[in-house]
This record gives sequence, structure tokens and C-alpha cells, in this order.
Amino acid sequence: MKNKKLWGGRFQAETHADVDEFLASVQVDQALAQDDITGSIAHAAMLAHCGIITQEEYDILQNGLLAVKKDIDAGEAKFTIADEDVHMNIERMLTEKVGEVAGKLHTARSRNDQVALDVHLYLRREVLTIIDLLNQLRSVLIQKAAEHEQVILPGYTHLQRAQPIRLAHHFLAYAAMFERDAIRLKNNWAQINISPLGAAALAGSSFKTDPAYTAKLLGFDGTYANSLDAVSDRDFMVEFLSCASLIMMHLSRFSEELILWSSQEFAFIQLDDAYCTGSSIMPQKKNPDVPELMRGKTGRVYGDLISLLTTLKGLPLAYNKDMQEDKEPLFDAVKTVKASLAIFAPLIETLKINADKMQKAVKDGFLNATDLADDLAKAGMPFREAHRVSGEMVAHCIQKNCY
Amino acid sequence: MKNKKLWGGRFQAETHADVDEFLASVQVDQALAQDDITGSIAHAAMLAHCGIITQEEYDILQNGLLAVKKDIDAGEAKFTIADEDVHMNIERMLTEKVGEVAGKLHTARSRNDQVALDVHLYLRREVLTIIDLLNQLRSVLIQKAAEHEQVILPGYTHLQRAQPIRLAHHFLAYAAMFERDAIRLKNNWAQINISPLGAAALAGSSFKTDPAYTAKLLGFDGTYANSLDAVSDRDFMVEFLSCASLIMMHLSRFSEELILWSSQEFAFIQLDDAYCTGSSIMPQKKNPDVPELMRGKTGRVYGDLISLLTTLKGLPLAYNKDMQEDKEPLFDAVKTVKASLAIFAPLIETLKINADKMQKAVKDGFLNATDLADDLAKAGMPFREAHRVSGEMVAHCIQKNCY
Amino acid sequence: MKNKKLWGGRFQAETHADVDEFLASVQVDQALAQDDITGSIAHAAMLAHCGIITQEEYDILQNGLLAVKKDIDAGEAKFTIADEDVHMNIERMLTEKVGEVAGKLHTARSRNDQVALDVHLYLRREVLTIIDLLNQLRSVLIQKAAEHEQVILPGYTHLQRAQPIRLAHHFLAYAAMFERDAIRLKNNWAQINISPLGAAALAGSSFKTDPAYTAKLLGFDGTYANSLDAVSDRDFMVEFLSCASLIMMHLSRFSEELILWSSQEFAFIQLDDAYCTGSSIMPQKKNPDVPELMRGKTGRVYGDLISLLTTLKGLPLAYNKDMQEDKEPLFDAVKTVKASLAIFAPLIETLKINADKMQKAVKDGFLNATDLADDLAKAGMPFREAHRVSGEMVAHCIQKNCY
Amino acid sequence: MKNKKLWGGRFQAETHADVDEFLASVQVDQALAQDDITGSIAHAAMLAHCGIITQEEYDILQNGLLAVKKDIDAGEAKFTIADEDVHMNIERMLTEKVGEVAGKLHTARSRNDQVALDVHLYLRREVLTIIDLLNQLRSVLIQKAAEHEQVILPGYTHLQRAQPIRLAHHFLAYAAMFERDAIRLKNNWAQINISPLGAAALAGSSFKTDPAYTAKLLGFDGTYANSLDAVSDRDFMVEFLSCASLIMMHLSRFSEELILWSSQEFAFIQLDDAYCTGSSIMPQKKNPDVPELMRGKTGRVYGDLISLLTTLKGLPLAYNKDMQEDKEPLFDAVKTVKASLAIFAPLIETLKINADKMQKAVKDGFLNATDLADDLAKAGMPFREAHRVSGEMVAHCIQKNCY
Repeated sequence: MKNKKLWGGRFQAETHADVDEFLASVQVDQALAQDDITGSIAHAAMLAHCGIITQEEYDILQNGLLAVKKDIDAGEAKFTIADEDVHMNIERMLTEKVGEVAGKLHTARSRNDQVALDVHLYLRREVLTIIDLLNQLRSVLIQKAAEHEQVILPGYTHLQRAQPIRLAHHFLAYAAMFERDAIRLKNNWAQINISPLGAAALAGSSFKTDPAYTAKLLGFDGTYANSLDAVSDRDFMVEFLSCASLIMMHLSRFSEELILWSSQEFAFIQLDDAYCTGSSIMPQKKNPDVPELMRGKTGRVYGDLISLLTTLKGLPLAYNKDMQEDKEPLFDAVKTVKASLAIFAPLIETLKINADKMQKAVKDGFLNATDLADDLAKAGMPFREAHRVSGEMVAHCIQKNCY
Repeated sequence: MKNKKLWGGRFQAETHADVDEFLASVQVDQALAQDDITGSIAHAAMLAHCGIITQEEYDILQNGLLAVKKDIDAGEAKFTIADEDVHMNIERMLTEKVGEVAGKLHTARSRNDQVALDVHLYLRREVLTIIDLLNQLRSVLIQKAAEHEQVILPGYTHLQRAQPIRLAHHFLAYAAMFERDAIRLKNNWAQINISPLGAAALAGSSFKTDPAYTAKLLGFDGTYANSLDAVSDRDFMVEFLSCASLIMMHLSRFSEELILWSSQEFAFIQLDDAYCTGSSIMPQKKNPDVPELMRGKTGRVYGDLISLLTTLKGLPLAYNKDMQEDKEPLFDAVKTVKASLAIFAPLIETLKINADKMQKAVKDGFLNATDLADDLAKAGMPFREAHRVSGEMVAHCIQKNCY
Repeated sequence: MKNKKLWGGRFQAETHADVDEFLASVQVDQALAQDDITGSIAHAAMLAHCGIITQEEYDILQNGLLAVKKDIDAGEAKFTIADEDVHMNIERMLTEKVGEVAGKLHTARSRNDQVALDVHLYLRREVLTIIDLLNQLRSVLIQKAAEHEQVILPGYTHLQRAQPIRLAHHFLAYAAMFERDAIRLKNNWAQINISPLGAAALAGSSFKTDPAYTAKLLGFDGTYANSLDAVSDRDFMVEFLSCASLIMMHLSRFSEELILWSSQEFAFIQLDDAYCTGSSIMPQKKNPDVPELMRGKTGRVYGDLISLLTTLKGLPLAYNKDMQEDKEPLFDAVKTVKASLAIFAPLIETLKINADKMQKAVKDGFLNATDLADDLAKAGMPFREAHRVSGEMVAHCIQKNCY
Repeated sequence: MKNKKLWGGRFQAETHADVDEFLASVQVDQALAQDDITGSIAHAAMLAHCGIITQEEYDILQNGLLAVKKDIDAGEAKFTIADEDVHMNIERMLTEKVGEVAGKLHTARSRNDQVALDVHLYLRREVLTIIDLLNQLRSVLIQKAAEHEQVILPGYTHLQRAQPIRLAHHFLAYAAMFERDAIRLKNNWAQINISPLGAAALAGSSFKTDPAYTAKLLGFDGTYANSLDAVSDRDFMVEFLSCASLIMMHLSRFSEELILWSSQEFAFIQLDDAYCTGSSIMPQKKNPDVPELMRGKTGRVYGDLISLLTTLKGLPLAYNKDMQEDKEPLFDAVKTVKASLAIFAPLIETLKINADKMQKAVKDGFLNATDLADDLAKAGMPFREAHRVSGEMVAHCIQKNCY
């Protein structure tokens, strides 16, 4: 019995159904379907441009691909595990639409450069979306800072009240972090916006193709200089996962503070009811679920990062099947970061500030001891000595209970 | 507008739809539906046993839960995000079946101990399945070792031919690793098979309940000694993820060797066509996809481990919403390990051994240099000197090209 | 120019000094010096027992090794990078003491099984030390719980006051975690206490040795069944690192609470001055440095775990130089866990409890709302309905400010 | 008894010696001594420039600091754990040199902004060094590619021979990776080269200082916009660790290939004896230790990354003691990456290429099957059909043993 897979010419036997299931990626990579079609149309245009297929063939392929796209958009396309991945599924659908000419589409192309292209198209779009979400969150923080310009709260170090600060200053510290996140993503974008198409399996093609043509059609800044690199580079994904980890780390820090501030002990803020839930057993509870869950999701994105780094460790050139495992951590991190940022902005926007509580906290705790030490220093005492005098006064007051 | 959630009594406003989406876990935790129903029936039986509900109420609840189970088995149950999680969804379904008496089921129970119970039930079953898969794989290795008892190949260190070994010895090294994996999982199982039910939210219940009764009904070895611990313990999951990481590490090592041995350079084995795929562009290719993908999936399980460890870091007692993030890494690792072990056994079973190639490799490379040094040592030369003499003979032969 | 290394017979050139530096492990593995000598004496005894060396040679070797040990204890031994690792350094020292007979010590042994033996000896001792430290910490917690049996504080979920609990109950939750940690380490110990000696490089030895004899001399429960496995098994280290990660996770949770409770907002406890530090600029500060640093060190141990897991991924059998990287994460985790546990016990012991503050916190926040719902349920109302009624009463009180 | 620490004014008791040991960072952060002195001189200059200290005081401080630096350079300075960290140690040394005026140096500064400054100074220098090492390695690769322009070897996918490629092309794929690494580090450098000095503990200072002045003196591109951010930002370190992880990942891939190619089965290359070691038991062995160890060190740097990410998760603003744990992973990664790159360049430079072996490997294995399919496609057959025909020819040849 011959193997009926598109690559099956050399094989004596079919793969087992459970092997198909194990190896298939279509459950995951069908998220790339739109990008796959976009890339295929550009590839077909290049083949026509270079005279490798005729204009008529191009028209048939393009219309066929658009028809497939329409089916997918309408939810009428059937992706099957037997066809392994999104590329083979779409090629099968195309064949059903246009017949054997569909077989010409894969000329001078391999799934290795095709999947790389799809992910480049996907991620450059998502990165822009995330930069936009970061900017929106920064706007909210800046507005919130402006609204509460006069609110003073204790600045903390070691979770001990340290010195009085403005709430606006506190919010703008986070705005600064999210600005850095956006800068990092812009740098990441520059590495993403390069086209791998034309590398084929690893060594380019014997056809006289024009990779710069497809790159230009698809809006890339250029093409990979090296074909082995083009199909085996996953740096831009790791870089994204690292950026995503930092975003989640920032959100986890902010979330920790929102949870602290929502406690009865701090009572600095009230989260809007829309961002909290209750308890199935304790009727009085109002839990800051959204920041808690966001803090928890930090682990998930760190896990995505370590997952891909581990997978890539020690892989020889060029493409290896291990690399199929790149997509789930990437998609998961994209989804997590987008959802987290999208919900964090309105959560901050609708936050109620208990300025009185913050003010009261500033008055307790000797927050002006540094100012006293500074004043002594300004009067000529070496700062170390001024610090000691000021510290001993605090100790005295605590002992005498006079504060 | 009042909040219609089951816990909504204290709330003025509904949560937003996108907040519901962000917070909901039902997409993931519906995998626990069967365990949830099992646990609820046991809980209801305990309530009746302790006189907290009547026998009639118990009968209604039990029949209702079985009816819900039937719907779920038949694929007719509708889980909705509006109902947050698997527990609330099933309670809603139960209410639809039996009316307001459904509200009695949650007496003396919280979702905190309920979800913990569900995961204990789930994981103790899956761990047994995985131990079984490990044993099956070990059987295959032992059989394969027996079949090829006479086959000799080079043992490698530093990927350099070192000394001749039996292929059987090589296979049994892996059997030893998988045996350790099974021992570790048995130890893990002992920590899993403890019932958290009765801890309620964190502090037990004011009802006179009998947690040992439910524990016994459900086949647990005992109950948690401390209720705060019962609802916030995730150790047994981390322990499982650590066991799973080691299993994948072992599989990654074996896979690396299968990939090496499948190369044209080694050519020690042939994977059955059923476990390989071809290339969409290179007609001659036969790729060892299964071991490659398995090696790649190691990253995924390491990522699951680091994900949960990160999530748990620094969480105060007792339950925090962060912990909702425990299930996806757990389920993902269970699924990955099961699929990997299940496919690895037949892959080994159907492996073709090229004994001639292995034999030939043994003959090249001075693999008996250690024996020569040993013989010199046996004849009285200190081993270090014997080693030097033997080494210089090898260097001489290489230089003279006489091998 | 010939290579003068002990293994240099086959080599034409010396390694470069910077290569020596890069490859050397002696900076790290000299921590194993005592274990290396212990193992060597046992190995020599076995060689004599089996007639491979004479009794006289054994006496010379033993006395020489003890003399080397004395030098090391006295800080007079010179470990050099030129001798690569602890094994070669000690062999060189031995040669300086006893001359060429030192060369017989390495008969039927390789550095591969030697280093594995050393780490087994090292870790089985350290694991017992850590179990002991866990037990000491548990004793302190139990005593502290007993002392403060009557102290009530709010139990928290989502960092919101949930239900009143005893402080003793809270402390005992951690005692339960540390008990599980000890159980895990005992299981780990069983996997460690197996002797790899006799595996030699990977394939055993052509000498008629008796590995069971050395195993018994050294107090091991048995020997590895498979020689390839014996030299390439690092499972027991990963298992330890996983146990260590869980210990640090537990300490990070407890530390988080101590930091929270030390804040002016909670003010539930006072850490003894001996466990805090001040600020170089703010004279009033008293910072809970010890729990903060311990929480921070969690990252370090998680990093150690992922470091070794990554290193082992995809390594073919048997020994590979990559494995040299196993020791630093192991030593680092041992040191961190020991120091953390040793300091945590007296920190808890000297803790001052502000029982009044805890009591006051219990009175605010409707912590008895669950009891009210329970009472309504006991009176016959379905729990879900009772929960709603109770929740609406809380909402009403908050609105009317009557609490 | 009063506390004699520089911050001890408010304290009743000394910290315990083992607490000092646990909390001290001087064992690690004394690596920052030079940067600390540089920063202190600039800070003193600013204090004088702003009239906060006199010119005479500045001269005394500057000369004192230079004298301390001289002692440190000469190895005559004594760092003690009792003085906690590098900053306090140097201040103590300065006091010994210049007396009580030393106490004025810490005016308008905290250890929080001081340590941040030191690390910025340290890392911006090290990043440039690493970029330089990357460039040197790229030069070697380009030269090696040029030298071996005519050498052909099989390009591999799935470790199966795929298509013939030039060795130069293979080397240049790595050059492309290291180029991206350099770009990433340049982006990282831009985030590092910002001065945090002036933020003091968290809220700036009541003195009229000029942070832009110190920033300019020290060659920074600017100052942090937000003081809370300035003292708690560790993004630039995580970013570096992520860049370092990618560098190690690239090196691990290249190392894997060098190890494969050094095997007797591939025999494509010979590493220079200077980069290999032998076996203590097997006289014939020549092990590719350097690439193996480098591959192993990948785990170490991944561990450093996850260590810092974990430590930072969930920390509230601003400085927390946890952050002291940032330096060891950073220093470790810097050291590992530098040593790895420094040794990799000459290792490649001295590599011997077995062009014959590579050529021979190209001839076996039907590497031109793609070209055949391409030719059929060029003659008009749809590519999919051409692929099948070509594949069946390969299968036929394998069956008939005619290759």
C-alpha cells in the first residue's frame, strides 16, 4: 500500500492514525490560515512575475485561494488532522477548488519557508496591536495621574512607609515601564519584518525566483541574507516572549499593589465591582480577582519563554521537527498579554481612590525623618551623623509612644 | 442593577462580559466535570449521613447529578462562560433538573475545597495511567533487548566511540530510567491520594460534617490535617510536573539517539515508515519526526513546571485567584506525557536494527584500547603508565593511517 | 611537544591555558574533596579485596590519601586549574606523597563513575542535614503555635479577610508543608543512596571487581543495575532541585506574609531587630530584610532547577562534558536552602505577636457572614438562598456605613 | 546595646552574625568596587557644583576615594561582611582615609540609586565588550567561509541529508545569528545608558541637586524620568539575560554540530588538540569538550534568566531587598557569555575541515532529487506530481540497492 500523503512518493506505508494525531499541528496552526493565504497569493504573484507560472495560472490560483479564504471566514472549511498542518489543508482545499493546477503553487517553496513566513506575518501584526494596547494603558495612567495630582500617599521600600510621594508619581513609574516595553517591541518588530520566503527547504530553489519581489509585495523591509538562517531562525519569537515576560512582570508588580491596596488593612482603593467577584461560601467577600489572575498569568508567560528556549537548545541546522513546538507558546503569550493589557486599562480607569486613607497613612510613621536629617545636614552636620541623630529621635518616640 | 451571580448578594453591578471571559476557567476546567460530579455525590452522601440534609434530598441530588452526568457524556450539556467554572455550570445544570434543592448541595463546602478535590481525583487517576504506560514501555525495551541480545555497538561518551557494549545494555539503561520515573510517580501518588474536602473556604465549616466519611467513600488514604493547607496546597501538582519533566528529559535523550542513529552517517536503525514523514519539497526525505517532536515537547513540559512554580511564588495563605492558573500546565503535561509514552513504545517495537552497521562501527576506532591498557596493568604496569602507552600507540596508528 | 596531561598519550599538543581555564571544574568541585578521598579509599580496599592490588599497595594508598586529606583539612593543599578537576588534583597530590603506585588507584575506575560517586556521597549527607533543619523549623512552629493558642486573626483568601482562624492553625499550615518537604527528601534519599562505582567509563571494567563490596563499605543500599545509567544518571539531582524549589516556594509564601504583617498597615507582628536592617538615608526605617531576601532567593533555586533540566535535555548516552555543569546549581541550591532554613527558625522563634491588632482585624469586615448564612441554612433555607440574603445584608451595611 | 551600623540610629540591638552573613552582598557586589568609586567621585563633584559641599571637601573626598581605589587595585583593601555591601565597605575605607567628612558623601544619595548606578556603569561596559567579541567571532566565520568557499557538504533538515550547500553558507548562517545578537545588545545598551542617580531612596532629595550633571559627567545619554522607576527598574538586566540566552542558544546549536561533525560517523572536521581532552580510562579518546561544555552552559544562562524574572515577579514599588539577588545571575551570565565567545572564535579558526568526507556525503543520499523534481516541473508537470514521481524513483532505487 502506498502512502497517499503529498510527500508520500518515497514511502511504503501510511503513518498510523495516532502518529498523525501526534505529529499534526493543524489544531494549533490553523490560526495562521489567513496569513498562509496572503503569503500564497504573494508567492503565486512572484511565480507569475518571474515567468514560472502563466498569468492564467496565477489568476486561477488567486481566485481559488480567495474562495478558500471565504470558506474559512464563513466557518465552512474543514481542517483535518490527516492533512497535518494548515499549509497542507489549504493546499487540499485549493485543489478541490481549482484542480491539479493547485500543485503548481508549491513550486520553489517549502513548508519550511512557508511556515516561517506565516509566523512573521502573524507576529508583526500582533506586536503592533500590543504596542497600541500599551499606549492606551499609558494614556489611562497619565490621565489618572492628572486627575489625582494632589493625592499624597506613602512611598514604600521594603513594604515599609518610606517617604511621602504623589500618587501621580507612582502611576507614572508604571507608565515609564510600559513605555520601555513599547520600545522593546518596536526593536523586536524590526527583526520580525524580514521575509524568509525564497529559502525553500533550506537552500533556496533552482528556479529563478525573486524573493525581494514577494518581500516588497508583503510590506517587508527586506529578506533574510542567508537561507539556512531564514528557515531556522526563531530568535524573533524568543525576543517577543522575553518582551512579553517583562510586560507581565510589570503587570504582576502593579497587580500586587492593587491587591495590597484593596485589602482592608490598606484600603487605599476600591476596584470597581465589574472587576471583582464574590465567594461561593462567604457572602461578604469582594475579591480583586482580575489583578490576582493577572499576577498568576505571569507564570504562564515565563513558562512560554522557557519552553521555546528549551526547545531550541542544541538543534543543528536547519529545520527540525522540534520547531513545530514554537507556535503554542507564542500564541499563548500573545493572547495572554493582549487580554491582560486590554482589561488592565479600564480597571485602572474605573478605580476609586481613597485619598483620605492615603493621606492618613502619610501622617503616621515618621515619613519626614529623612527631611529632618537633610535639614541637619544642610546646617552643617555630616549626613551620616545627621542620620544617626534623626534615627535615635525616632527610636525614642516609638519607645515613649509619642507619635 | 443587582449582580445575578451565585455569589452576587453583596454586589451592586454585574461584571463586564470581557471580565467574565478573562476570569472564567470553564474552557479549561470542564475537563474535571466527571470528577466534580463524583465529588458532589460523595459530598451529598456525607451531608445525609450527618443529618444535614434528608435522605430524600440526597436521592434527589444524586439522581439530578447522574442526569447531568448523562447529559455531559452525551455531549448535550452547555457550559457557559457566564457561569465561570465547571462547578457553577454543573450547579446550574443541577438546578435546572431538580429545582431549588440544588442550593443545598453547596452546604459546608466552598469552591476552594471542591476544586482541590476535583484535581486530586483527576491526577491520582492520570498518574496511574502514566505508570502503566511507563511499564508498557519498559516491557517493550526488555523484549527488544532480549531479541537483540547478541548485537554489539559502540558505547559512546562525548559522542565519541568509547567501548563496545551490547545494544541490550543500552536499551536497559533507558528501562532503568523509566523504572525510576515510575517510582517517583508512586511517591507522588501517595501525596495526591489525600482528601481536601471539608476545608471549605479555608477554615472548615460550622456544620457538623464528617470529612473522613467522604474521604473513605472516594477511596482516599486520609484527609488533610490542616484546612488552610488543604485549599492552598499545590505541591502535589508541582511534584507531578517535576516527574513529568524528568520523563520528557529521558525521552529527549532517547529521541536524540534515535535521530542520530537514523542519520545516513550512523545508519544504525530504521524507523518504521509509520513513524516518519516526508518533505513537501525534497522527494527523497524520510524524517524521524516522532522523536524530533518528542524532543521538542520537552521544552513544553519544562515550561509547564516553571509556569506553576512561578505562579505559586510568594502567595500568602490561603486561596488566591492566581491558583486558577494551575490547571492548564497540569493538563498540558499530563496530555503530553501520555501521548509521548503511548507512541514511543510501538516506535521502539517496530524499529529495525542494522546490526551490521553497528558491528562495523565497533571495529573502527580503537575501542579495545582500554582493554589493552587493562592487560598491561594486569601484567603489573601502574594503570596510569599503561594508559599512556596505550594512548601513544593509538596516536601512532592514526599518524601512520594504519587502522 | 607531547601533552603532559594524565590522559595525554594520544595527543600531539597541549591544551591552551584559556581552554584549561574554561574546561576546569576544580574551582567548583573541590567541595567534593573529602568525598573523593573517602570514595578512593573504599575503591582501593576493593581492589585489594579482589586481589587486583596487594595489601601493601593498599596500605600505601590509604596512608597517602589520609595524608592528602590532612593537607586539605589544614588548608595546605594546592588545587590547580592545570589539573582540571578535584580527582586529578588529588591524584597528583597522592603521587607526590607515594610515588608511582598512586597510578594503580585508578585501575578499574573512570572519572565518570568517580565523580558520580562523589556527588552521591555529598548529596545523601546534605539531604539528611536539610531534613533535620526542616524538623527543627517544624518544632519551632509547633511551639509557637502552642504559645499563642488563643490568638485569633482573620484568615484571608484573595488577601481579603475571610473567616476568623487561630494563629496556631496558620502556623501549622506551614508545618504541614515542611513535613511534606521532608517526606519528599526522604524519597529522594532512597534514590541517592545507590552506588555508581564499578561502572567505570560506561561499560564496567575487564578487571574482576566487586562493586557490591565498595557499595557496602560506603553504606549504600545497593549498586546501579546498569553501568551506562550509573554514569549518566542525574535524576537524583533534578529531584533534589525540585524538592529545594518547593521548600523555597513555601518559604516565599511565609516570607510574603511576614512582610505584609510587618507593614504599618497590618502591624500584626514585629520581627526582632536582629533580623532587620535600616536605611542608609531614611532614619526611621526598619526593614524586614531577611524574609524579603529569602523570597528573592526563590528565583535563584528555580533557576538552578531549570539550569540542570536544560543541560540534560537531549544528551545522548553516556557521559558528556555538558554534565560537568551539574554541580554549581546543585551546590548553590543546597547552600541556599540550608542557610534559609537555618535562619528562618530563630526568626520565627523571636517573632513578637501583636495579638490585639489581630483581634481588632477580626472584628471588622463581617467575618461572621458565613456563619450567618450557615445558621439560615441550618434553619432550612437552601444554602444558595441563605448566601444571597447574608450577602445583601453586608452590602446594605456598607452602604449605610453601619459597621 | 546600640546598633553600630551606619543606619543603626533607630535600632536597639545588633543583627546576629549569621544574619549579617545571610544578608551581606559584599562577597558578590565587590565586583562593582571600581564603578562605585567612579560614581561616588561624580556624585561628590555634583554636590560641590551645586554648593552642597565645598570645593575643599570635594578635593578631600576625591583624593580619599582615589586612595581607596589604589588600595583595592593593589589588593590591599579588606572587604568585610560586617559592612554588608560594597558601598558601606568603601565608605568605611574612605572614613579611615579622610575622617568624618566622608559622612558628607552620602548626602542626597541612597544605596538604592547608588547600586543602580553601579550596575548601569558595569553593564554598559560589559555589553560593549560582548558586542566586540561577537564581532570578532563573525570575522573569524567570514574568513573561514572565504577560505573554504569551494567546500560542499550536505545541508540537513531533520538531521537527514537534504540538499547540497556550501560550507561557507553554513558558517554564514551563524554569522547572521551573531549579527542579530549584536543588534539586540545595541538596543539593550540604549536602555542601560541612563543614569538613575538622584532618585535617592525612591523620592529624590530635598537638596537642590543636579542629576543631569552627574549623568553628563559619567557619559550617560540622560536620566530616568521617574525616581521610583529609577531605583526599581531591573528591565535592562532581564533584557541582557535574554540576549545572553539567545547567544548561548546559538552557540549550543553550533556546538551540537561541531560535536556531530567530530564524531567518527560524520568525521567532517577535526578540532585542534588544544580544544579537546582525553579520557582517564580510554587511551584512544579525543573528546570535543569545549563545544560540549558550551552546550551545557546554555542551561546555566537560561537559569540566570528565569532566576531574575522569578525574583522580580510581584514585587511592589519601590526597592525591596529581594532585588539584591539580581547581581549573581547577571555577573554569571556576563562571565559565561564572555568566556564562551572568547574561546569559540579560536576554536573555529583552528578547525580542520575534511572536505573529502563532506563531498562524499553529498554524493550519497539522492540529494539531487529536488532538482529532478524541479526539472520535471520546469518541463510543465505540476510540482506536486513531479515531487511524487521523483520520490518514487528514490524508493525504487533504495529497494533495488542501486545507489
